[in-house]
Amino acid sequence: MKVVITGGAGFLGQKLIAALQERGVLAAPDDTSVSISEIICVDRTMPDNACEGVTYVEADIGSEGVFDEVVPGDASSIFHLAAVVSAEAEADFDLGMRVNLDATRALLERCRGLAALPRFVFASSVAAFGVAPPIVDDDTPVRPLNSYGVEKVIGEYLVGEYARRGFVDGRTVRLPTIVIRPGAPNKAASSFASSILREPLQGMNAVCPVSEDLAVWIKSPRSVVADLVLAHDLEAENWPDGLRVLNLPGLTVTVAEMIAALERAGGDTSLISWEPDPAIEAIVGSWPQGMTTDRANALGFTADESIDAVVRQFLDDELG
Amino acid sequence: MKVVITGGAGFLGQKLIAALQERGVLAAPDDTSVSISEIICVDRTMPDNACEGVTYVEADIGSEGVFDEVVPGDASSIFHLAAVVSAEAEADFDLGMRVNLDATRALLERCRGLAALPRFVFASSVAAFGVAPPIVDDDTPVRPLNSYGVEKVIGEYLVGEYARRGFVDGRTVRLPTIVIRPGAPNKAASSFASSILREPLQGMNAVCPVSEDLAVWIKSPRSVVADLVLAHDLEAENWPDGLRVLNLPGLTVTVAEMIAALERAGGDTSLISWEPDPAIEAIVGSWPQGMTTDRANALGFTADESIDAVVRQFLDDELG
Repeated sequence: MKVVITGGAGFLGQKLIAALQERGVLAAPDDTSVSISEIICVDRTMPDNACEGVTYVEADIGSEGVFDEVVPGDASSIFHLAAVVSAEAEADFDLGMRVNLDATRALLERCRGLAALPRFVFASSVAAFGVAPPIVDDDTPVRPLNSYGVEKVIGEYLVGEYARRGFVDGRTVRLPTIVIRPGAPNKAASSFASSILREPLQGMNAVCPVSEDLAVWIKSPRSVVADLVLAHDLEAENWPDGLRVLNLPGLTVTVAEMIAALERAGGDTSLISWEPDPAIEAIVGSWPQGMTTDRANALGFTADESIDAVVRQFLDDELG
Repeated sequence: MKVVITGGAGFLGQKLIAALQERGVLAAPDDTSVSISEIICVDRTMPDNACEGVTYVEADIGSEGVFDEVVPGDASSIFHLAAVVSAEAEADFDLGMRVNLDATRALLERCRGLAALPRFVFASSVAAFGVAPPIVDDDTPVRPLNSYGVEKVIGEYLVGEYARRGFVDGRTVRLPTIVIRPGAPNKAASSFASSILREPLQGMNAVCPVSEDLAVWIKSPRSVVADLVLAHDLEAENWPDGLRVLNLPGLTVTVAEMIAALERAGGDTSLISWEPDPAIEAIVGSWPQGMTTDRANALGFTADESIDAVVRQFLDDELG
């Protein structure tokens, strides 16, 4: 079976690819396990460390007709991770609409032309929530207050509708903020949540733009990858029409709790400087501080054990 | 001030035009009452009885660039009523997406180029709800189960986002099923709800495709028009970001209750024949049977008094 991963050159895409290669199989439409014959990674740039055996395609997914070229007619599975991230989509409205909305629709349109009904896993986000109670649940209405969140929500509805019409087997998961994201800071408004741990753990300076009592709903890279694979492999009956979106389990941690964990792991907390950024605080502060995720829990999705386990995972996976 | 009405040749558009002409004024951005200088009606066909003093433009709103031509640069108010209706959007997915989604976005894009921030009233629908309790409230998540509903919901998010970004002053109202709609049956799945009253009141045959215990959430044409004007004229502070969508008040009536009202009004109920249509029952049966509309009530939106008053209104307004 052929698997297409958009945004596959990003850190999450690369970790997903590694997990799929280690696994070697994914569920086919009839729910049997089938060997992965090809992984096609589509992204606007190539990764620094390309994985062997992966087909990399460098392309702007927002450009016309790109998916006709990069998604083979016999593709069985799509992981749609590519996005213009939150602060970038807020800064450039048209770019966000083109990549986060138009490209999602174009990919779904391409899937209508595939030989067999593909499983389509869409990575949405906690940013779907804006006007909401601090702790949301499976039935909290999504009222986003940033462009990225709006575009993700519209993507959720498109995936759901293309699924209901029988064009894809669609499954959407709303990802918590991923901590600790490896690599350099990016334009996600939540970039600091990784940075204030990742940089000091390597003896480097970090900037915290929000107050220390801000609570963030987080999930580690390993946990996110496991949930993406589970979202793909669950039998179709678990994704009924109208309920094809799941809030994923996570951990609520405040900035202060992250810094305490950094200290327990031997990191130098004095490397963090505080430079309040009201724009960042406004975006991340509008996201939920936590979720009750009964539906996802019942289906086997899981959260990390603790912020200390999240820090240990980074030390093991990234710093050897 | 110039007012643009899409779908303005439809029965609702014509009634809105008549109400605006009688009123003569609408609220300007500074909330003062300003005289209406021009009403521009955009639709794919022209109405049978054109209103004097209205500029009619015959155009397919789904075609590229149409709004650059028909929306003048100094337009102050937009009422976006045009849509491919529910059963038609279900039968022709691409047509529904093009008109209900792409044209809504194109109209919003056109509004970015206007001289002043226009008030933008968007007519959404009870069809936004699918997987939901029988009686929904202001915080029930929208999980539509038909293409029309999905396209309307995406339109709601687009209007909200374009408003949040400062491109329009957006206000969305979810219309109940309009009863009694004058004219001939149309391709709305709910067309029967008017037909079983309208035709017998004129001595004509009608077909009922659903069971008599099906409950429908309805609102009369006069009540809908009044609410559209109120949605436009309310001060902007009543439409905060994330909460720019209101469920409108209505009446819950079963098919049996409609037929009883028909009989009380002297209509011949034997003119109704029963021809069950599972496709219609599935679409309309997935819509809420009622709503608690606390937010709209608090803002002054109102429901009809009774199904008998709804029937009387039709007799007065349409049959003289």
